[in-house]
Amino acid sequence: MPDTTATSYMQIALEEARAAGARGEVPVGAVIVNPARDEILAQAGNRVEELSDPTQHAEMIVIRRATAKAGLSRLVGCDLYVTLEPCPMCAGAISLARIRRLYFGAYDPKSGGVEHGAQVFDHATCHHKPEVVGGLVESEAGVLLADFFRGRR
Amino acid sequence: MPDTTATSYMQIALEEARAAGARGEVPVGAVIVNPARDEILAQAGNRVEELSDPTQHAEMIVIRRATAKAGLSRLVGCDLYVTLEPCPMCAGAISLARIRRLYFGAYDPKSGGVEHGAQVFDHATCHHKPEVVGGLVESEAGVLLADFFRGRR
Repeated sequence: MPDTTATSYMQIALEEARAAGARGEVPVGAVIVNPARDEILAQAGNRVEELSDPTQHAEMIVIRRATAKAGLSRLVGCDLYVTLEPCPMCAGAISLARIRRLYFGAYDPKSGGVEHGAQVFDHATCHHKPEVVGGLVESEAGVLLADFFRGRR
Repeated sequence: MPDTTATSYMQIALEEARAAGARGEVPVGAVIVNPARDEILAQAGNRVEELSDPTQHAEMIVIRRATAKAGLSRLVGCDLYVTLEPCPMCAGAISLARIRRLYFGAYDPKSGGVEHGAQVFDHATCHHKPEVVGGLVESEAGVLLADFFRGRR
């Protein structure tokens, strides 16, 4: 039942997103998994505000933690789950880290860099293109973001 | 003499690139400057191999250090000098950090994300496009990289 597993990992990413929102961050969460061992290597939410650092997106944090844990700069065979379509920075990092498959929740037409805008994976200069599964648990991820931005206005 | 100043900052980035090469890293260096104060906020070379972390490009390191130093997630009015055209990850981070002007040395047709490939700044989904000055001290930056990759073969 691979879909059930994917959904359950995305639920963990959503928990991280909710926790990030509760800390005043844009509610995005991410998880990196080694599917061969059914093992979570890292899970995190955004920490941009907390650390005053625009590079602290959830995806960047889990890539840094997972590579540190593995002692390898490439996460070959690993999958990344994130509640929102990655921006170009994160898409670039996902490619550099050699992530096998990217699952994301909500599409991001305003700032996304996978299916929108720069479409980072879709150029000859991108030397590793992960498989991409967009829209996984999309509505839950989207509602979380919509509620957050509504609350800010 | 703004050009002289820009060249001298790029020379500091080149020193960081050489130091990175001596550590076994791809020789790329970067500097972030607050031009209003003629102050260097951060300077660094690649640390990908050292830290087993594909996100540790020179540009990412200086953005993280400079934002930490400033206590702000946006480096408004600051300029970034880097010896090689940034990849999509770094271009995305440069935009998120609201860098005023990007100076880079050598063009990178194989992996660049500014003038090549994803051209991260050239999409409506990119909410801040820095001014871009490419090819500053280009030949010196290019020779450094060419020598490094020749030595590896």
